[in-house]
Amino acid sequence: MAWRLWTTQVDEVDLVENAVYEEHQSRAGVNGTGPGSLMDPLEDPVPGLGTYEDFNTIDWVREKSKDRDRHREITKNSRRSTVALLHSISDAFSGWLLMLLVGLMAGALAGGIDIAAHWLTDMKEGICLDGFWFSHEHCCWKSSETTFKDRDRCPQWQTWGELITGTSEGAFSYILNYLIYIVWALFFAFLAVTLVRAFAPYACGSGIPEIKTILSGFIIRGYLGKWTLITKTVTLVLAVSSGLSLGKEGPLVHVACCCANILCHLFTKYRKNEAKRREVLSAAAAVGVSVAFGAPIGGVLFSLEEVSYYFPLKTLWRSFFAALVAAFTLRSINPFGNSRLVLFYVEFHAPWHLVELVPFIFLGIFGGLWGALFIKANIAWCRIRKTTRLGRYPIVEVLAVTAVTALVAYPNSYTRMSGAELISELFNDCSLLDSSQLCGYLQPANISETGIGNSLADRPAGPGLFTALWQLALALLFKMLITVVTFGMKVPSGLFIPSMAVGAIAGRLLGVGMEQLAYYNHDGLIFKGWCTPEADCITPGLYAMVGAAACLGGVTRMTVSLVVIMFELTGGLEYIVPLMAAAMTSKWVADAFGREGIYEAHIRLNGYPFLEPKEEFEHSSLAVDVMRPRRSDPPLAVLTQDSMTVGGVEALVESTRYSGFPVVVSQESPRLVGFVLRRDLLISIDNARKRQDGVVGASLVVFSEHPPAQAPDGPPPLRLRGIMDLSPFTVTDHTPMDITVDIFRKLGLRQCLVTHNGRLLGIITKKDILKHMAQIANRDPDSILFN
Amino acid sequence: MAWRLWTTQVDEVDLVENAVYEEHQSRAGVNGTGPGSLMDPLEDPVPGLGTYEDFNTIDWVREKSKDRDRHREITKNSRRSTVALLHSISDAFSGWLLMLLVGLMAGALAGGIDIAAHWLTDMKEGICLDGFWFSHEHCCWKSSETTFKDRDRCPQWQTWGELITGTSEGAFSYILNYLIYIVWALFFAFLAVTLVRAFAPYACGSGIPEIKTILSGFIIRGYLGKWTLITKTVTLVLAVSSGLSLGKEGPLVHVACCCANILCHLFTKYRKNEAKRREVLSAAAAVGVSVAFGAPIGGVLFSLEEVSYYFPLKTLWRSFFAALVAAFTLRSINPFGNSRLVLFYVEFHAPWHLVELVPFIFLGIFGGLWGALFIKANIAWCRIRKTTRLGRYPIVEVLAVTAVTALVAYPNSYTRMSGAELISELFNDCSLLDSSQLCGYLQPANISETGIGNSLADRPAGPGLFTALWQLALALLFKMLITVVTFGMKVPSGLFIPSMAVGAIAGRLLGVGMEQLAYYNHDGLIFKGWCTPEADCITPGLYAMVGAAACLGGVTRMTVSLVVIMFELTGGLEYIVPLMAAAMTSKWVADAFGREGIYEAHIRLNGYPFLEPKEEFEHSSLAVDVMRPRRSDPPLAVLTQDSMTVGGVEALVESTRYSGFPVVVSQESPRLVGFVLRRDLLISIDNARKRQDGVVGASLVVFSEHPPAQAPDGPPPLRLRGIMDLSPFTVTDHTPMDITVDIFRKLGLRQCLVTHNGRLLGIITKKDILKHMAQIANRDPDSILFN
Repeated sequence: MAWRLWTTQVDEVDLVENAVYEEHQSRAGVNGTGPGSLMDPLEDPVPGLGTYEDFNTIDWVREKSKDRDRHREITKNSRRSTVALLHSISDAFSGWLLMLLVGLMAGALAGGIDIAAHWLTDMKEGICLDGFWFSHEHCCWKSSETTFKDRDRCPQWQTWGELITGTSEGAFSYILNYLIYIVWALFFAFLAVTLVRAFAPYACGSGIPEIKTILSGFIIRGYLGKWTLITKTVTLVLAVSSGLSLGKEGPLVHVACCCANILCHLFTKYRKNEAKRREVLSAAAAVGVSVAFGAPIGGVLFSLEEVSYYFPLKTLWRSFFAALVAAFTLRSINPFGNSRLVLFYVEFHAPWHLVELVPFIFLGIFGGLWGALFIKANIAWCRIRKTTRLGRYPIVEVLAVTAVTALVAYPNSYTRMSGAELISELFNDCSLLDSSQLCGYLQPANISETGIGNSLADRPAGPGLFTALWQLALALLFKMLITVVTFGMKVPSGLFIPSMAVGAIAGRLLGVGMEQLAYYNHDGLIFKGWCTPEADCITPGLYAMVGAAACLGGVTRMTVSLVVIMFELTGGLEYIVPLMAAAMTSKWVADAFGREGIYEAHIRLNGYPFLEPKEEFEHSSLAVDVMRPRRSDPPLAVLTQDSMTVGGVEALVESTRYSGFPVVVSQESPRLVGFVLRRDLLISIDNARKRQDGVVGASLVVFSEHPPAQAPDGPPPLRLRGIMDLSPFTVTDHTPMDITVDIFRKLGLRQCLVTHNGRLLGIITKKDILKHMAQIANRDPDSILFN
Repeated sequence: MAWRLWTTQVDEVDLVENAVYEEHQSRAGVNGTGPGSLMDPLEDPVPGLGTYEDFNTIDWVREKSKDRDRHREITKNSRRSTVALLHSISDAFSGWLLMLLVGLMAGALAGGIDIAAHWLTDMKEGICLDGFWFSHEHCCWKSSETTFKDRDRCPQWQTWGELITGTSEGAFSYILNYLIYIVWALFFAFLAVTLVRAFAPYACGSGIPEIKTILSGFIIRGYLGKWTLITKTVTLVLAVSSGLSLGKEGPLVHVACCCANILCHLFTKYRKNEAKRREVLSAAAAVGVSVAFGAPIGGVLFSLEEVSYYFPLKTLWRSFFAALVAAFTLRSINPFGNSRLVLFYVEFHAPWHLVELVPFIFLGIFGGLWGALFIKANIAWCRIRKTTRLGRYPIVEVLAVTAVTALVAYPNSYTRMSGAELISELFNDCSLLDSSQLCGYLQPANISETGIGNSLADRPAGPGLFTALWQLALALLFKMLITVVTFGMKVPSGLFIPSMAVGAIAGRLLGVGMEQLAYYNHDGLIFKGWCTPEADCITPGLYAMVGAAACLGGVTRMTVSLVVIMFELTGGLEYIVPLMAAAMTSKWVADAFGREGIYEAHIRLNGYPFLEPKEEFEHSSLAVDVMRPRRSDPPLAVLTQDSMTVGGVEALVESTRYSGFPVVVSQESPRLVGFVLRRDLLISIDNARKRQDGVVGASLVVFSEHPPAQAPDGPPPLRLRGIMDLSPFTVTDHTPMDITVDIFRKLGLRQCLVTHNGRLLGIITKKDILKHMAQIANRDPDSILFN
């Protein structure tokens, strides 16, 4: 599967061509899951029967029915022999085993990515003399001379400038460091983009839009294959290390899904059934977030709320198990070196006050506005990339953005550090001994050096803090702009960290502002009563956290999962209310500008056939308005149950490109009998011509149970009831489309036949619905590409 | 609604009669949601149109479609005027406002119940001299003489014996206390059961089975009414205080749902739409668990996993909001006096070791076995109560059980204390200074009184602990037996606390055993390496917690929500793995004895029409095997679209008791046109006879769009297309039942028509499916009672 990719090198442009090519194969079909197949079990007579073409939509009902048949078979057999019983037990536990493996593999990979990214990021700045394979932090851990205060300065670690010039002072050393930083950044970025292009074009981007589409039942072969996995893992490390404004959290979901998909091949149950495999992939999405943030419960809710389409309760429990296994695997690898599970561990000491809800809601508004603007800007930029010549030079684009990022980022310590480090620092609560610039407060006179008094009390800002503030303001501006062009480039790129960083900077700025306001006006109207001097009444770190949640919420429109992930970072129910207030405001504000989150917007940009489960169908059209054929179209291509010849059927199939045909009683009485797939029809006729004597062009094709009486001298009829689906879904022509859409979503249909008073009128496919929805929203209905 | 209950006093026996009476009204119907009603908007011409009979199932598709129509209407109007725009905005926010109110009300009620139950429970033992309205704890809080060690002994609090005899010593005082304890217990129990019988029979039991059924779309009028709320709140306090082996956690879910249902009446949107109201009720179930355990996330997951049937993502977010509001309301009331949110706050200090998974899994097996046994025993006992004369004397039964409980419980301090207190004590980790009997360890010689050394290190058991252990063993036995007869009596009774108590006792016993084993064999094979002397290697409190989770899991079969609730109690991800291991084992073991949890078992016992969403339909039958009419039945009662007279229709309706009739083209060509409800038909004909001139028995009833040509001298036809549902659901006769069941579950259907080659064959109702499933499982199909 992945090999195919290697050779064909499909990328987005190819995807479109592919789609246009396969467009004609619309009108998908249902295979014989009904009693037809029970009466005449063909047992996969031809390889490939029952599987799907690339870029097509699966039929959930058929897949689930197939799995139930398989399960019934195993249960029935298990009563016969001990071997079969053991098989039945191993079958029941294979799901759990698979989850365990997915958790272990994804956890290990995430740990490896963390360690490698740390190392390469530090490589841009300098090298460890004890061994080049140590990161800055590891290098100085080993150093015995390290004291608490300058933990990140130790003689073993030398910047490149220091190594070459022999001194860490001076402009020359600085410029040398600057240049080498840019060179490394460009090198990493170049490596990342060329590897992606050469080995797995699908490895670029965050992967979440595609995973959402795949989970809704779409097939993209190779998207979760082993080449994608390997390439994504390696290039993700490189992309993060290059200092681009991107995160590794979203791509980790893709990596976890790749692991799951590959491990599915170990178990027949999951290998052969697209619906079952999607259950595993849903769990894998939970695993991805679990390892990204160390938040297993948040991960499960993320999968449930954001990416999954079909999420039965059995999957919930298994996802939780897998997410936990992954989180503990990651912890035993201990990539952050603090045996913490979570990426940003925060511990706040002061409670928040009701008045503070006002700035929190303000942060929510900021997050919502930024989210909405970001989506619009990013989509506009991606559209330019898709439609103009820019899209043809992805390597140049990546290198240019990397160069700009590195050039601008280096001088400002807040943009130079990685996104995760930045957020970590912004979330941090300043204690008295904290030496970071952000904690550059003036020491109040009444607190002696012995540390008596509330060490976390609000203090006036000092010069260090003022420097930090304007640097942060510049960093905010820069991050807001550069992220728009970064997300969507041909390298793996996540959006969680950059958007959280934007929010955290804004939050911290507001938090410090509030803190100073409270310090100087502690008897003012607002602060009176709850904010005495020497009290720790404002926690700027909490503001940063709330801001991060608001911006992430504005971009992705996550709700419960966002709050739970943040809750798992702090571990205190206390702070859920601020987070919730900000997340709610952010979502409302952002929704006012457009109801789509960034992932849905990218799905639409790429024209994937994704039927959004969250949005209600608001229009009052009827099934008859959406179905094909339209009034001006040629009549619906149907087969009759016992009056067509082999030649007639072949002529009909040749003259159309539909992938399935309804079978009716007769042309005069078009009452629906069943539905037959184009491919099954062709294969069966071929087969019959080869093996069955006397099947000629004039032979009757019979779909009915009892073939009609026939002239004794005619050729024998060809009986094809076995390949017909006897239970096609139907709605009446007067069914409101909101109900029809509901049926499509809840049952996972590909197509549905439309009848009037028992007579067949037409057909509605998922694509017809999406086109109709696009038309209602005044968008181009041809923007929906695939089947 | 509740008033009706007051007068009719429906209880379980009546429910059955009711069911038999209404049994004949099978074959439910769909109202005209299609274009029929759009063309001819009747605007509720007759009161009651579009509502449901008691003990009937709602049609989700119709309700949701109704709400979409309403929403479309509001959106359309909002563009016209400012008032309409404001109406549209207030409509959008009414859901959030409702959630806020539900959270506040349920939180306040839960706080009140907690405080009242504490007070009355202590009332059984003694009285506060400072004022009878103080509970034991509050009384001694106020006392200045209280030291840490004997916090629960203060002169202001006197036991009844002490008050009467003047001394707390002596056998006479003890016996007096004993007697007064029993008298109070009987008094509370008597009050509870008589109040329930007099005011709201629905207030008894835990309420969760009924709420599950209601959420799946069943109507039980008055079950969530204001009389039920008031009665349940009061009698819950009394029942808990009487010392019976029951908890208030399950009933709190019922209380929260009552609050939600009552508050729904403030908003037209929710009052008039049964489906929308069920969304609110789902959120209320989350609120109930949130206030019961102080676990908002766990509550939401409980609602999602355990009780809800239809849980859209919008509800998830709102439930979370409501659960948080409720939790914070409860905390601001502070009923536990420790400003903790959670019922049992636990903080463990020692990590667990991998070897300990063996006893944890053992606890899981115990929990599973006990759960399975408990369900079987309890259901057997409830069946005896239902079928024999025992059921006629509920007051006697309650008094007898209370007397036995009080008699046996008083002498043993672990059974005398309330279930919640017991669990709290069992979860507790023993520190050196702990004076409780459970911490009666010998002080090792090498630890001096100054408390140097690990204060939590494993120590040898002392005589205090041995006493505690055999008392606990007796308590375990007693709780296991008495809970079987208690759950299901005619008082409000929850099962969470009793089953957790059983598990916690078993866990603590095992934990202490392990601890002693480790202490005496710290160089043994198992403990070598990780369990040095003076180390705290075994935490018996953790065992108690794991045991509690295992037993609760065995009884209710909760999984994710159980683990998350427990996680929220400890707040440490550390202990999720033991909890998960125990919960998984417990579920597997219990499932081996029967897949039903206690709530499903009670649903089945009561014959509610509940289509379990978790279980797969395993049998390979077809729609044609399940549909009515069967081969031996009279043919299906149908209406024809344009050839029946008013008299003919009336005769058909009179001669059958179906609540809906399919409309076909003609008797000769039974192609389906639509579906019409019995009630709508009768009302419309009545109406026409009264108002429309010339409608006589010989008038034609016309359902078709274009009425047939008619003799010019005949009476004018009665056109009823407007009341017909033009989009009835159909499946073909060959559709496998697993797919049909899936459709029923996912779309929330009441009935579905069966066709063959476009001709109508029969009808399948939800009840037919449940009867079929009962038949497959070799149960009496007539055990399904309602519609």
